[in-house]
Amino acid sequence: MPAMKCSLCGELAVINMRRHKLRLCAPHFLDWFPKQVLLSVQKLEMFTPRDRLLVAVSGGKDSLALWDVLLRLGYQADGLYIHLGIPDNGYSDDSLRHVQAFAATRPDAHLHVVDVAATYGESVPQVGRRRHRAQKMCSVCGLIKRHLMNQIAFDGGYAVIATGHNLDDEAATLLGNALHWETDYMARQSPVMPATHPKMTRKVKPLARMYERESAAYALVRGIDYIEDECPYSVDAKSILYKRLFNDIEERSLGAKAQFYLQFLQAKRDGRMTFPVVDPVHLLRECDRCGQPTSAPGLCAFCRLWSHPS
Amino acid sequence: MPAMKCSLCGELAVINMRRHKLRLCAPHFLDWFPKQVLLSVQKLEMFTPRDRLLVAVSGGKDSLALWDVLLRLGYQADGLYIHLGIPDNGYSDDSLRHVQAFAATRPDAHLHVVDVAATYGESVPQVGRRRHRAQKMCSVCGLIKRHLMNQIAFDGGYAVIATGHNLDDEAATLLGNALHWETDYMARQSPVMPATHPKMTRKVKPLARMYERESAAYALVRGIDYIEDECPYSVDAKSILYKRLFNDIEERSLGAKAQFYLQFLQAKRDGRMTFPVVDPVHLLRECDRCGQPTSAPGLCAFCRLWSHPS
Repeated sequence: MPAMKCSLCGELAVINMRRHKLRLCAPHFLDWFPKQVLLSVQKLEMFTPRDRLLVAVSGGKDSLALWDVLLRLGYQADGLYIHLGIPDNGYSDDSLRHVQAFAATRPDAHLHVVDVAATYGESVPQVGRRRHRAQKMCSVCGLIKRHLMNQIAFDGGYAVIATGHNLDDEAATLLGNALHWETDYMARQSPVMPATHPKMTRKVKPLARMYERESAAYALVRGIDYIEDECPYSVDAKSILYKRLFNDIEERSLGAKAQFYLQFLQAKRDGRMTFPVVDPVHLLRECDRCGQPTSAPGLCAFCRLWSHPS
Repeated sequence: MPAMKCSLCGELAVINMRRHKLRLCAPHFLDWFPKQVLLSVQKLEMFTPRDRLLVAVSGGKDSLALWDVLLRLGYQADGLYIHLGIPDNGYSDDSLRHVQAFAATRPDAHLHVVDVAATYGESVPQVGRRRHRAQKMCSVCGLIKRHLMNQIAFDGGYAVIATGHNLDDEAATLLGNALHWETDYMARQSPVMPATHPKMTRKVKPLARMYERESAAYALVRGIDYIEDECPYSVDAKSILYKRLFNDIEERSLGAKAQFYLQFLQAKRDGRMTFPVVDPVHLLRECDRCGQPTSAPGLCAFCRLWSHPS
């Protein structure tokens, strides 16, 4: 294979982005990627330089790339690592070490760490196993992470929670929702989720327009030492299947993945497609124990997790 | 492989329909299939025994299975074969022979044949090639078929036009529409398309809930001699890709194909998903030449096809 040349300077390219008709060398790609993220942030009015951001970091490529980009762009971005207590191959400890090593080299990067087992007496797999008739592991884990993100953001006075979901994640989620016409989820799916209660924090996905391979390439070229293992529980056949299906479609029609996700957002914005029945957010009240917004009477779903026996 | 037994009588089964947890022998399957079609027809109020039906037949398994089923159920169903003039391997002539042979053995089956080239001076491939900058072949062909179906139905006083689209066809079409969020098409996609003008005829798809393999099995077991070749122009990479993707998904989640299509219809019926901007049908007027309803000024798109030079 002949060496690929950078479309901008003719030096050796490290990535060929066919949908953008763009090949870039390492320096130009490290310049291009944050600019694209900035465009998303500004276009969708995700946040401004005055806002304090809480970046949810798992130690994986996407969330660390996001944190890195936000810091390089000059945003006030702190990290939040939630230690889930997943013991397989030291997954959670190892992830934490990657996050700490990342933060250690950036003097302006403050890191919050919440250890679920130390704080609540049980790790996520332990709660998950105890509750496994009622809920699936990934659903318990998602509930815990959402609760803690929201709590740390509220307690710390952060304006925005940022997560590292990339376009492949979003397209796979949307396909899963569309395959069952989960209209409630489709109504809510967006790179910007406004706060629907004074104790909730706005959530944004600044990488939602970036392909997974672009974000992986950024982490790699930038020399970010991320954890390559996937969560041992997340080997979710469906999302992997959907991503593979999309890669098949993308192979035949360049840009199909981006079109699917971005045109969905556009059709909703244009009002060409509407989802009239959405959870009545005005019915949110505060949980009797933790005070976080919930639609349940008494305890919120998070607090009910810890009220044995389940 | 041990012989499969019919779930109803224990005799040798000819088909295993996993999503229905049902294996049937030839006689029970030939009984079951029309009953399922009848359920769709009645549930969606497609037509009644008093209605005269025009069945669009191509000579393929789905449309001949449909015609056969409608006749067996006692409906007044005439056939319409549109001779497109596709010469490759004698495709159109051969299709016509299959349709005529089918009709010849059913004394109550009246068949209309329209020969495009004989009537309008050019075959579909000829018009398609002449217009190939403006439109794709399949789009020209679709336009011609829709026009002629509607004209024959109106002239003959038919209450309903029935086409042989099966669930795999509908799911692939819906996926194609959803991948680009073609909201106008999504708004209209339905097994029952009401007439939106006095000169239009209601259109229905009685096989829309039947899997392609079920309808193929019906034609086979019933001994219908259908044309197995696909239209040489219809080797449309995309719809084939989408059908293959769905078969992958179906392999992992039984019934996924049916759920995708049927839950889409349900979400629209429930008003959980709406498509507010639809073609304003009240603006339809009659074509200056043929008198068929059109939204265009002067000539309709069909009549413009034949107004050389294009």
